Amino acid sequence: MKVALIQQKYHGTKELTIKHTQEAIKKAKEAGAELIVLQELHQDRYFCINENVDNFDLAENYHSDVEFWAKIAKELTVVLVVSLFEKRAAGLYHNTVVVFEKDGIIAGKYRKMHIPDDPGFYEKFYFTPGDLGFEPIQTSIGKLGVLICWDQWFPEAARLMALKGADILIYPTAIGWFDEDSLDEKQKQLDSWITIQRGHAIANGLPVISVNRVGKEIDDSEVLDGIHFWGNSFAVDAQGAFLYRASDDKEDIGLVDIDFKVSEGIRRIWPFLRDRRIENYSEITKIFID
Amino acid sequence: MKVALIQQKYHGTKELTIKHTQEAIKKAKEAGAELIVLQELHQDRYFCINENVDNFDLAENYHSDVEFWAKIAKELTVVLVVSLFEKRAAGLYHNTVVVFEKDGIIAGKYRKMHIPDDPGFYEKFYFTPGDLGFEPIQTSIGKLGVLICWDQWFPEAARLMALKGADILIYPTAIGWFDEDSLDEKQKQLDSWITIQRGHAIANGLPVISVNRVGKEIDDSEVLDGIHFWGNSFAVDAQGAFLYRASDDKEDIGLVDIDFKVSEGIRRIWPFLRDRRIENYSEITKIFID
Repeated sequence: MKVALIQQKYHGTKELTIKHTQEAIKKAKEAGAELIVLQELHQDRYFCINENVDNFDLAENYHSDVEFWAKIAKELTVVLVVSLFEKRAAGLYHNTVVVFEKDGIIAGKYRKMHIPDDPGFYEKFYFTPGDLGFEPIQTSIGKLGVLICWDQWFPEAARLMALKGADILIYPTAIGWFDEDSLDEKQKQLDSWITIQRGHAIANGLPVISVNRVGKEIDDSEVLDGIHFWGNSFAVDAQGAFLYRASDDKEDIGLVDIDFKVSEGIRRIWPFLRDRRIENYSEITKIFID
Repeated sequence: MKVALIQQKYHGTKELTIKHTQEAIKKAKEAGAELIVLQELHQDRYFCINENVDNFDLAENYHSDVEFWAKIAKELTVVLVVSLFEKRAAGLYHNTVVVFEKDGIIAGKYRKMHIPDDPGFYEKFYFTPGDLGFEPIQTSIGKLGVLICWDQWFPEAARLMALKGADILIYPTAIGWFDEDSLDEKQKQLDSWITIQRGHAIANGLPVISVNRVGKEIDDSEVLDGIHFWGNSFAVDAQGAFLYRASDDKEDIGLVDIDFKVSEGIRRIWPFLRDRRIENYSEITKIFID
């Protein structure tokens, strides 16, 4: 199965950005992609760079946004993974992935469970933590273990998706550098980000796809300089070996062949699921054990 | 704090092997090491390469082995992590780490929880899975999250040690290649092994030390050729960045400076422990969710 990872920058307006995304999706389809994955909150700038109540306006069109992407999935007959700002009620918003089937029907959705909050990533201000749990989404091309960005640092999320039968882990994401950090610190952060996700592939015997934003976005509140999104969208196999890796500065359409049968071979030689000591794991449900 | 990782081969007999280990420990102490970590089952050949009831004889001297290493820890005033074949009763054996305090007193022990069983690694034949759970061992130089070899593939083990306040994760191990595998497959396996352990460092904001055996050991049952233990003992910081990495073919005494204060700085910029969704993790105690 051919999978496309569409790594993009913000093109100044929602309309222009979506236009570029639509073109990229068409190209990916022409190249044979059956599953197309977009980055986190791909319709807009990464607005969580500061806290501003006006930004809740960006979720006002959630339902028409869903209809828009459903139409594209149907027109191109692809399974499409989009990442939207969901208004659920006044004062109640989620960071939500919607997965469309090839006929445009919603296959399922996932609301980001782990919400970060760091300078420049003020997501706890915008997003209520997801209430749908860790449930893989069944599609015609496989069971997709969709998680979002900050989730990628939590082995529990990946493990639960694997235990529920996910065929693949998929992370739309938006992560970057602060230009003022040293080159060494930047490389360490990027390397940690890739390494932990490769670790999830290995621990669970599943391929992993991660699609990140690229380009610099300025903090219009002028408190911070901005975030330099580091791209590096990638795909690894069920042993954590690279199938694809994008640049840190360019838009890109990554095309990867993924064969779920490979995972079974790897799980046979490394049968970690056989040997878990579940009777000793119950304290994982504590925040700390003191 | 200076930590020593002693990577060794089997020297043909238990006596000769221990003699080499003793010399290496002395050198490490002279170089300033306060914590010295030995590889898995370091006293002998890796006997699990085949299933032979006579090999249970190798656990007969467990109590005198403990006394022997206690004396060395006391003589050299080091915290010493040793890995022994423990006879608990006739027909009941464990793969056990014993940690000695600088005065030779036993600080604690850990019995390997996850037991592998693959061709050449017939550990389910020899070892009853540990019954002490995942408990870090308090010593004068910090709380040691000691795990053993196959445990390194299980994020749950690392997480539980972290939640119980471990300052560091330590994996004595014995893993290697089969010579008949392709170079590409060998590199993938080694890379997966390093990557998943670096992932535990990142996920938990803890340094990780892994000490592996080196050199080829023959299967005297002549069913298999043998195992080519791949060395590559390593240490990473709490962000998963390398502090040290040994060769794949030579004995080595690795010396690393580890500062537990670094972990706190890293946990402040990446506060994963803050954001765990514990109310949604309970199904991790299932073997599969179907």
